[in-house]
Amino acid sequence: MLSQHDNELLTRTNAGTAMGDMLRRYWTPVLLSRELPEPDCPPKKLKVMGEDLLAFRDTTGRVGLVEPVCPHRGANLYYGRNEECGLRCVFHGWKFDATGQCVDMPTAPAGSRYKDRIRIKAYPTCEAGGYIWAYMGRDEHPPAMPMLAFTQVPETHRYVSKKWQDCNWLQCLEGAVDTAHFSFLHMILGTKDMDQMQAMEQLRHAALGAQVVRNDRFRWVRDDATPSFTVNEMDSGLVIGAARRADGEDLYWRITHYLLPHHALAPSAFPGENYHGQTFVPVTDTSCWIYTYTWNPDRPLTEEEIALAQGGHTVHAQVDAHYVPLRNIRNDYLIDREEQKHRSFTGITGVSEQDAAIQDSQGPIADRTREHLGATDVGIVRLRKLLLTQVNASAHGEAPSALAHPKAYCVHSGGWVAHQSRSLEDVMVERFGNAHGISFPCSAAAQEKPVSDRTN
Amino acid sequence: MLSQHDNELLTRTNAGTAMGDMLRRYWTPVLLSRELPEPDCPPKKLKVMGEDLLAFRDTTGRVGLVEPVCPHRGANLYYGRNEECGLRCVFHGWKFDATGQCVDMPTAPAGSRYKDRIRIKAYPTCEAGGYIWAYMGRDEHPPAMPMLAFTQVPETHRYVSKKWQDCNWLQCLEGAVDTAHFSFLHMILGTKDMDQMQAMEQLRHAALGAQVVRNDRFRWVRDDATPSFTVNEMDSGLVIGAARRADGEDLYWRITHYLLPHHALAPSAFPGENYHGQTFVPVTDTSCWIYTYTWNPDRPLTEEEIALAQGGHTVHAQVDAHYVPLRNIRNDYLIDREEQKHRSFTGITGVSEQDAAIQDSQGPIADRTREHLGATDVGIVRLRKLLLTQVNASAHGEAPSALAHPKAYCVHSGGWVAHQSRSLEDVMVERFGNAHGISFPCSAAAQEKPVSDRTN
Amino acid sequence: MLSQHDNELLTRTNAGTAMGDMLRRYWTPVLLSRELPEPDCPPKKLKVMGEDLLAFRDTTGRVGLVEPVCPHRGANLYYGRNEECGLRCVFHGWKFDATGQCVDMPTAPAGSRYKDRIRIKAYPTCEAGGYIWAYMGRDEHPPAMPMLAFTQVPETHRYVSKKWQDCNWLQCLEGAVDTAHFSFLHMILGTKDMDQMQAMEQLRHAALGAQVVRNDRFRWVRDDATPSFTVNEMDSGLVIGAARRADGEDLYWRITHYLLPHHALAPSAFPGENYHGQTFVPVTDTSCWIYTYTWNPDRPLTEEEIALAQGGHTVHAQVDAHYVPLRNIRNDYLIDREEQKHRSFTGITGVSEQDAAIQDSQGPIADRTREHLGATDVGIVRLRKLLLTQVNASAHGEAPSALAHPKAYCVHSGGWVAHQSRSLEDVMVERFGNAHGISFPCSAAAQEKPVSDRTN
Repeated sequence: MLSQHDNELLTRTNAGTAMGDMLRRYWTPVLLSRELPEPDCPPKKLKVMGEDLLAFRDTTGRVGLVEPVCPHRGANLYYGRNEECGLRCVFHGWKFDATGQCVDMPTAPAGSRYKDRIRIKAYPTCEAGGYIWAYMGRDEHPPAMPMLAFTQVPETHRYVSKKWQDCNWLQCLEGAVDTAHFSFLHMILGTKDMDQMQAMEQLRHAALGAQVVRNDRFRWVRDDATPSFTVNEMDSGLVIGAARRADGEDLYWRITHYLLPHHALAPSAFPGENYHGQTFVPVTDTSCWIYTYTWNPDRPLTEEEIALAQGGHTVHAQVDAHYVPLRNIRNDYLIDREEQKHRSFTGITGVSEQDAAIQDSQGPIADRTREHLGATDVGIVRLRKLLLTQVNASAHGEAPSALAHPKAYCVHSGGWVAHQSRSLEDVMVERFGNAHGISFPCSAAAQEKPVSDRTN
Repeated sequence: MLSQHDNELLTRTNAGTAMGDMLRRYWTPVLLSRELPEPDCPPKKLKVMGEDLLAFRDTTGRVGLVEPVCPHRGANLYYGRNEECGLRCVFHGWKFDATGQCVDMPTAPAGSRYKDRIRIKAYPTCEAGGYIWAYMGRDEHPPAMPMLAFTQVPETHRYVSKKWQDCNWLQCLEGAVDTAHFSFLHMILGTKDMDQMQAMEQLRHAALGAQVVRNDRFRWVRDDATPSFTVNEMDSGLVIGAARRADGEDLYWRITHYLLPHHALAPSAFPGENYHGQTFVPVTDTSCWIYTYTWNPDRPLTEEEIALAQGGHTVHAQVDAHYVPLRNIRNDYLIDREEQKHRSFTGITGVSEQDAAIQDSQGPIADRTREHLGATDVGIVRLRKLLLTQVNASAHGEAPSALAHPKAYCVHSGGWVAHQSRSLEDVMVERFGNAHGISFPCSAAAQEKPVSDRTN
Repeated sequence: MLSQHDNELLTRTNAGTAMGDMLRRYWTPVLLSRELPEPDCPPKKLKVMGEDLLAFRDTTGRVGLVEPVCPHRGANLYYGRNEECGLRCVFHGWKFDATGQCVDMPTAPAGSRYKDRIRIKAYPTCEAGGYIWAYMGRDEHPPAMPMLAFTQVPETHRYVSKKWQDCNWLQCLEGAVDTAHFSFLHMILGTKDMDQMQAMEQLRHAALGAQVVRNDRFRWVRDDATPSFTVNEMDSGLVIGAARRADGEDLYWRITHYLLPHHALAPSAFPGENYHGQTFVPVTDTSCWIYTYTWNPDRPLTEEEIALAQGGHTVHAQVDAHYVPLRNIRNDYLIDREEQKHRSFTGITGVSEQDAAIQDSQGPIADRTREHLGATDVGIVRLRKLLLTQVNASAHGEAPSALAHPKAYCVHSGGWVAHQSRSLEDVMVERFGNAHGISFPCSAAAQEKPVSDRTN
């Protein structure tokens, strides 16, 4: 439970708000790289934390991210021509490059240098992991890019997507670090369905040669609704472990990372399985983009895995051409009440869509003043506490310390089965070789990867 | 004409307003019973006087009407599973029964009794006359249900529906007690059309053996636009009589009841004909549900009568699967200007739709400060006066006296032809056997009717 | 660049605002005459400068423009019956004539004269040039109608239309007097396309026997983005000339008129070509109707010319049955980025739609506080200065002097090629026979034209 003041503090992100200023200190994904597929392709309108922006890829491939308003007469540069290293306003021909500099002003008298004094607001960008990232903060020099594991593997080893969501960013992020809800929201009803699913998954793993431990994780998750949480701080955020009773004296651990300020990794992967993560970026305070990524540090994703992700399986949503989920708040997520009665807990198809439904249902901005939190909500409580500390420090002018630790973002989250005597640290070392899950470089392939990402 | 203050007083119904509090002292219909067709069926979202609520029918058939927000993390219980006498939140499994009590909390440690202290807001409900009713007031014990005649006849003797309307509840109610407008809004043009309609109606009545008096009511209504009003008070509201010149020294009386706080009965029925009534329930202050009922105290409705009502004839509207009229403000009621020129006064098909068009046209909330009322508006003036008295008394803490007279709701309204020397009281006794139209029990059938309605 | 105060002053037009009051001193078009095609046809809802109004053509052909609210119970007269020289409310039959007078009140007692005291607000109307015009000002006697040239030619010599636009009226008007943008917004790419277009146009002109001067205006407009502006005041507004380098020592002049308060004529016509103009009428402060007219003072328009205009060519837009452009802000003007890359500057089809796109893109109300104006914006600067002077004078009670000069509206605008030594006055005399372009009567045909327009 939060005070109204703290709820506002954490959820408001427009320029000038404390949280908005804090988020702007970090690099943030703003588009899929494939949304600007080639040099001089059509520009894209976007909105990030309440700011209307325009992105374009110039003739050299560089991405400009600018305020879309032409300073001459206020026409929108979205209608502009993307030509010869700049965007030209179609009203009277003023032209701007990717840094926002006016580079041509045909309405000015011959020989005039007036254009040199005209700039539009532009944010530094870079590309990494299949996304275009922007630095929207006030510092002259952007910080180093966080070395998130999925950005460190070859392009073949990952699949990235994005999806629209109709609520405030924070309740989506909270949903991601709340591993307790798996005992309900994503549950399958009926032992038979569960057995079939388990069997199919084992087969797929065997075919891939993954080091699958013998496990019954669906059963363990279903049968223990009160996982025991341990939360450890690290340079880049939090390690959040939730332990459920497995068989005998074993515990089934599901471990997720929260990485400052808006990333969360999924808790499901056993060794050899693919890893998943999400980054939550406010569009307005009542909508956000969820950037979703799947990667494997050790091998390329298979065609089947990519087809499944594209089709809206695993953590990815099934989306339309505008990246809006096909099952969304406007069509009640196509909830099927018969399905809910007999086969799945929600009657909604898709893990991503189940999350969206329940997060949207908390309201455009969840009211956290009336909650009743308990032991299984410890991950969320710690997340909020860290965010409040960070946002208050940032409001007092402190640069976030996480910015100094880009390698501490190169982590993996996932699952493990261990004897009940083992601590979270023990489990992390056993599963990931490191108490915080850091593995840098994250794979042999990454070591050989040429540095192709650049900062504009 | 009202002051701005009084117009606001009568039209604002959210919780905390004077009118909202007064309306909440009475039982109010909130759904058709058939919208929750069976035990454990899908829950229904609804909004009543600005309050977002959730209705569900539990395993025993009992209807719960609750605030839809789970007190754990604020997820909406609409997505919940309706299972084993309670609604279970799909986020983390908290479960609530029809009284709002938390009856299961799987995230709590074994043995915890914390759930016993957790409740969600729930309103008492009952079912009567094919509707689900709720008591949303503050008193611990709800009042007795009003014995509206249509609720006292066997199910076979009635047809009930509902329709959406895009304006404030009060202008709909005013339209119902304003019997003067029949000379225009519902008029048919051309003697030939009128003769045909009259003939068809006589035939239908004859087939049913109804005691139809010789009458030319269409002609009388058309030819006298200045009915003379008499309004009498009674324990449950008002008897409103409007007398038009008939043939010779006779008057044609059309009599309607206004029953506190939101019911009105139709003035058309001659002996043997079906009776009609409506209840007006605010959704917001600019939209309402109109619950509409047709009944016959003496016999089951025929299949043809039910088919006509379902098809949007008589006082019922032609609606879609969500009970929104097919002809509505968004499609201009499919007004046909050629039809208006030659065959009907409005060019809009359907008595219900004609009412809706003109009531919506008064604006989202009618501005009563600029009206010019006259002698034919006496019914409306008296309705407003009574409502103002009642709402002010209620605001001073007085319980409405009508609550003590549930039998005074068992009335019938309709038409009669009488010599011009007779008073409204005389006419009521002649037509209904009682100066106020009360007939309790309302029919032989009703006396034998088993008491199947219950209060939850 | 304007101050925020002046930007508000020029763009806000509801009743009671300074600009709204100033605009209301002039006659303004409010409908196409063909929108009320015959006596007693269906009434039309409209909104002008924030006022909801209702127009109807009575049995004699006279147009009434009234406040749509029945003073009896507030029903909307839009649903009324247009019958026997008046609009009758379908609720209770009150009837009003085109002057707003209540002429029948069937609910009043026989012999009552109450109706004589009941009026609804009504504005004087007249018809001219294919439009219905209204005087919405406060003076008892409306001013004389402006003798705009297109209203002075026979009906056969003109084509008139209207189109919806989703932004404030002023930025549309500014777009019309800004002839500098032709070097970009309406440009065709590729010499081949331009040559073909030029050739086709020459052929069409030759077929019509138009006195086409040898010209290469597309090339001249494309090649000179810095036209030199001269602006002269006249009784009815401004003459705005923009001179571009033509061949040798010649200048290519494009001359437009701004006529107070909301008319602008197009700069393209060479002798023999058709003339075009537009009138900009606020609906709300974020939408407007653009009344668009094409005329030829000397001959009837050809069938082909009318077909082109109806199909959305020249200055007319391609609109739906509600006069909303098919290519509009809701479908991104069907911008074709391939077309934009290779064939046209915008990728948007239609000169009218190109204007709309860029004007809408300036925002619902353009922010003029951040502009950077230069020498090619002199026309706009002078327009604003004149408007500010006029609106301030009007706010101090001065009647606009232009109202006293209806003949000064009978002007033509267009293009001419002249030696660089000639002034705008010289060019006007050479091209139009008059330094201000006034030609009254505007054609031989007009002299013979019977006075068929009338004021109601």
